[in-house]
Amino acid sequence: MKLYDMALAPNPRRVRIFLAEKGIEVPRVEVDIQKGENLAPAYLAVNPRGVVPTLVLDDGTILDESIAICRYFEALQPEPNLFGRDALEIARIEAWQRRIEFEGLFNIAAAFRNSRPAFANRAAPGAGPPTPQIPELAERGLLLARGFLDMLEARLAASPFVAGERYTVADISAIVCLDFARWVGLKAEDGHPTLAAWQQAMKARPSTAA
Amino acid sequence: MKLYDMALAPNPRRVRIFLAEKGIEVPRVEVDIQKGENLAPAYLAVNPRGVVPTLVLDDGTILDESIAICRYFEALQPEPNLFGRDALEIARIEAWQRRIEFEGLFNIAAAFRNSRPAFANRAAPGAGPPTPQIPELAERGLLLARGFLDMLEARLAASPFVAGERYTVADISAIVCLDFARWVGLKAEDGHPTLAAWQQAMKARPSTAA
Repeated sequence: MKLYDMALAPNPRRVRIFLAEKGIEVPRVEVDIQKGENLAPAYLAVNPRGVVPTLVLDDGTILDESIAICRYFEALQPEPNLFGRDALEIARIEAWQRRIEFEGLFNIAAAFRNSRPAFANRAAPGAGPPTPQIPELAERGLLLARGFLDMLEARLAASPFVAGERYTVADISAIVCLDFARWVGLKAEDGHPTLAAWQQAMKARPSTAA
Repeated sequence: MKLYDMALAPNPRRVRIFLAEKGIEVPRVEVDIQKGENLAPAYLAVNPRGVVPTLVLDDGTILDESIAICRYFEALQPEPNLFGRDALEIARIEAWQRRIEFEGLFNIAAAFRNSRPAFANRAAPGAGPPTPQIPELAERGLLLARGFLDMLEARLAASPFVAGERYTVADISAIVCLDFARWVGLKAEDGHPTLAAWQQAMKARPSTAA
């Protein structure tokens, strides 16, 4: 088994934290997206989509998409459970995952990829057609991401963890999202005291450094 | 139990098809998003997020996010299985779900909500801040959605169903995505013969009419 990874990128980090929580070690290969290594022939031979993370199984089977890789390991090694134990918890975790993805990560990525010179003409991830940046989309992303932080502040004032009473994959997504938000200048400590305290508490978990 | 629904919208339809495949009936209440009923006080009292679908359980618990609601029912009634039986299938279905969501539905929604007068100043879903439309994003959405159809054409030339040898929730997402694509003028039958044939085959399933 081999995990194609990128230390700085948010989606690969979700997988690393997830594996650390499970206590699973997988050999990793670094791919530098900012330098375009994910679109070079060597990596496209591994995964023609040009996305990271990608997990290659011993029989050569390829799995990509961060949360799909996490679900693979959850099924292989169910404990500690991170995706939910009963119908209601499973649904709540999934709902929070989607909100973090669509309202948080997605908007931050829009703000980031539509404004940084490194992503000129490839504002959409992966090996698709050339995609020019849209400055208004960077602005919209920032506006909506700020709204997401406000919402998460309110949520964590009412709940110790994102999806409820215990740590789950939704917390992994949220911590990665908060750190990613700093890339576009959004900091929990600016006006979000509960979120900032929660972020500090999460930093105390060894997995967060993964 | 009560499901707040909208007949025309793609995400509620995913839940309806899923329930039909499971043979589960839930009383439904129609909410017209185009008329803005989702943002009216009566509906915001049900779900302050102003999104549809929303499931209200008998004890008043609220669940939203289409796929979270589907997972709730999958856990309550596991058969017929639609989210995968073993680690590899679970991961494959999740990966396809994400691609359909991020490369398909999301881009079609971008093309749609950033171009239609009905969504002027609310180009992002739900009860967030006013969001002006971005014409270039509608264009980009259309370009990337076309690429998604090409990709799905290739996939279905190699596999009888989206995630492999059998019908799963990924097929539900794909069929909803294909029908949603027509709203922005993208038709499977234009240059995607395999996809068009698959779409016809899916129409023969009674659940598809849900």
